[in-house]
Amino acid sequence: MLVVKFGGNGNLNMDSFCADVAFMVRNGYKLAVVHGGSKEMDALSEKLGKPPLFVTTPSGFQSRYTDRETLEIFIMAVGKVNKLLVEKLQKLGINAIGLSGLDGRLIRGKRKGVIIAQEGEKKKVLKGDYGGTVEEVDAKLLSLLLERGYTPVIAPLALSEEGEALNVDGDRVAAAVAGALKAQALLILTGVPGLLRNFPDESTLIPEIPGEKLEEYIELYARGRMKKKLLGAAEALRQGVHLVILADGRVENPIRRALEGHGTFIKQGGEGWTTLPWKMLTPAASTESTP
Amino acid sequence: MLVVKFGGNGNLNMDSFCADVAFMVRNGYKLAVVHGGSKEMDALSEKLGKPPLFVTTPSGFQSRYTDRETLEIFIMAVGKVNKLLVEKLQKLGINAIGLSGLDGRLIRGKRKGVIIAQEGEKKKVLKGDYGGTVEEVDAKLLSLLLERGYTPVIAPLALSEEGEALNVDGDRVAAAVAGALKAQALLILTGVPGLLRNFPDESTLIPEIPGEKLEEYIELYARGRMKKKLLGAAEALRQGVHLVILADGRVENPIRRALEGHGTFIKQGGEGWTTLPWKMLTPAASTESTP
Repeated sequence: MLVVKFGGNGNLNMDSFCADVAFMVRNGYKLAVVHGGSKEMDALSEKLGKPPLFVTTPSGFQSRYTDRETLEIFIMAVGKVNKLLVEKLQKLGINAIGLSGLDGRLIRGKRKGVIIAQEGEKKKVLKGDYGGTVEEVDAKLLSLLLERGYTPVIAPLALSEEGEALNVDGDRVAAAVAGALKAQALLILTGVPGLLRNFPDESTLIPEIPGEKLEEYIELYARGRMKKKLLGAAEALRQGVHLVILADGRVENPIRRALEGHGTFIKQGGEGWTTLPWKMLTPAASTESTP
Repeated sequence: MLVVKFGGNGNLNMDSFCADVAFMVRNGYKLAVVHGGSKEMDALSEKLGKPPLFVTTPSGFQSRYTDRETLEIFIMAVGKVNKLLVEKLQKLGINAIGLSGLDGRLIRGKRKGVIIAQEGEKKKVLKGDYGGTVEEVDAKLLSLLLERGYTPVIAPLALSEEGEALNVDGDRVAAAVAGALKAQALLILTGVPGLLRNFPDESTLIPEIPGEKLEEYIELYARGRMKKKLLGAAEALRQGVHLVILADGRVENPIRRALEGHGTFIKQGGEGWTTLPWKMLTPAASTESTP
């Protein structure tokens, strides 16, 4: 079982990604896709006259302030990405099924409600936020679909305890999905080749991080969005995923290329790095992959 | 099994509708919801500077010309309606699951490709249309979900033979879903109380139409969108659905009100109208309705 996060960055190559998903599924691998939608979201909210409002939290994260109107634009933006991925996969013969975290209560989240913005020395409280954290993923629904040959494609929305839709982070969703499905690997495809020692110099790619040193690497090297990706990686490792790969989503064959060793490999337990992940990913017994 | 179409008309009451769906499901009825999204679509495409283009076909139907850009706006508009319905139902404790016809190849369609517009005496051919007709609904996927207590909420998109997304008519989708699920009844909620003898005079509601006279009534009384609804009704009857009700979606308790006899009842076979549909709808054996 492999969970692949396809980032919302506009430079990512959706066609190559889908072709690679199709290749994997046809070769008997079980796969779940989680996607983002930030570029689509920015473009749509600009067009609708509601430009995105990003704030920096006191802990240094960039966070999107999501009022109800923004949430509904987010629903449309990620919904579009979801259906375009499903359409492309279907065209390639893969029986993709798009779901958001609302559907069948797939992803339970916790609403933040307020967001705190650090503006120089001052802190500003923004109320009515519909952002949330990922609390739980329903593996039962996903397994039901996977067992029948469907390939789930998951949009980053969650359902709050009060039954409200929440905008949640796609990387965290991917981590929680990988954990819930006890995936052997989580692959996060992004607009850079992996974690860079000196961002944005791509020649400074860090090829390996031992799981137990991840926190340290986050402190030292992660900038902006990369922090969330690595926190997602840490969560996935805690939930028993053996391997997290951060890799380039802009290239041809992004999944195969990553699995062949290109990217930043974060492995639980600090074992040797000699085993190619190809061999770790148990192919499904049957090659019947589409119902 | 009951299939309910919730129209895209802006006057329909989404809260009352969802409350009634929740009431039915809690009382053990199996239900599938199909929705439209025309009002949301019109508003969104106006806002995005791509106003809808309606043409009148030579056979007198109003048809939306859907180029690829319009299709993607349609995907967003119906996606929003889908998730708002799912969110409202989840808030009421109903385990709704939103799907479009693309997902899991739920609805197979046939692409029209061209649309012919009648402009006075002249006919104009518009190419690159992504509108389509509904060919087949996969009852297996819906049954899988219904058996496990999920309530499917279906958006009017279909997958063409070439694997492209198509904009399809929600009433036709509802008819095909009802046929595929062998539903006892199809209820189409709309912005009028049913078929009117003299549109828009609501006091001229036609309470009953014998199935075998439906064509005749379409010729005599159906205007605009109502024609498609009645053609949907005819399709559903042909596929073995016992009863189609056209009823008012603007009121409180729209489903219960319709089932109690308010609306236009179209019944296969011309039997007596004495049996209240409440009694026709076999409640599920178990009242466990959410997994």
